[in-house]
Amino acid sequence: MRILGIDPGSVATGWGVVERRGSQCAHVAHGTVRPSRGAALPARLADLHAAIGRIVATHAPERVVVERVFVGRSVRSALVLGQARGAVLAALAGAGLAIEEITAQHVKLAVTGTGAAEKVQVQAMVKRLLALAETPPRDAADALAAALAWHPLASVHGLAGAARGASFRGRVGRASGRGASRIVIRRVP
Amino acid sequence: MRILGIDPGSVATGWGVVERRGSQCAHVAHGTVRPSRGAALPARLADLHAAIGRIVATHAPERVVVERVFVGRSVRSALVLGQARGAVLAALAGAGLAIEEITAQHVKLAVTGTGAAEKVQVQAMVKRLLALAETPPRDAADALAAALAWHPLASVHGLAGAARGASFRGRVGRASGRGASRIVIRRVP
Repeated sequence: MRILGIDPGSVATGWGVVERRGSQCAHVAHGTVRPSRGAALPARLADLHAAIGRIVATHAPERVVVERVFVGRSVRSALVLGQARGAVLAALAGAGLAIEEITAQHVKLAVTGTGAAEKVQVQAMVKRLLALAETPPRDAADALAAALAWHPLASVHGLAGAARGASFRGRVGRASGRGASRIVIRRVP
Repeated sequence: MRILGIDPGSVATGWGVVERRGSQCAHVAHGTVRPSRGAALPARLADLHAAIGRIVATHAPERVVVERVFVGRSVRSALVLGQARGAVLAALAGAGLAIEEITAQHVKLAVTGTGAAEKVQVQAMVKRLLALAETPPRDAADALAAALAWHPLASVHGLAGAARGASFRGRVGRASGRGASRIVIRRVP
């Protein structure tokens, strides 16, 4: 199962692909889409839309997990971020992919054990969980973390399940927080 | 010169195409894109993106005018509206079109003579200016009004020029407000 995680942003959109094999998660690829700041907004949104299309075509994910937005920002920044999300979501759904949203808190909880983790903690844990040689950039790390946080049972058990789900055993298990082992025991005798 | 006006919205996106022939403006087509409310957000955004692409392919506009957003809304609605705008702008720029933004106030001023006009006034004036048999629906009327408000000299004189510009003479002239004749006299002896 190939999972694409995306962290959309108005300046930079992080993406990361992981492959789930049983209880293991392996790194496939990651990157950051950063449309030219000199270009006009519509051109940047079209670039973002096209880039997402290329990522999907190249890595053929079966699932997409998009980080849900924290809306406690200003109206202006919500509009700007919304525009980037609109281009990203249209590209993903246009490619026929089912999309799940997951809050930043759930992502952090899943990979660091706390929903209040700092960005650098997320980066460090993503590097460790995926045995990467180098720490991925912030936005790409968030996207990889979202992909790691996705859980096959999430649609049944709600997204909270994604943050402490059974398949975080093995290499990913350490990061799934205190609730993890209890749920693992119930589901996998 | 074919001009496509668009009024993006999270529920309904109005569009309208007019053709400017000298100082006259003629109606070409209009409509409302209303993605299925039952569908998930990404699918609705993909529908919106695809619909804009079809409109551009069908009517081959040379200019696009998009209504600028009034951002004095809630953060939540700014995000939702931003997503629709992102899908629309990505589709337009992806089709290689140059896009101009125009505020709702300028659009209203251009077609009704007052920036504080009600929606029904805009609808009535659009119907009259374009000699339509029926009043267009609200969102489509706003889009047609945006297309009417666009002015070839706007990029030189700023968008305020679009609201009282020289080419609102003739059939469209009546709607351009008190400032119109003065500017017309200066520009067109």
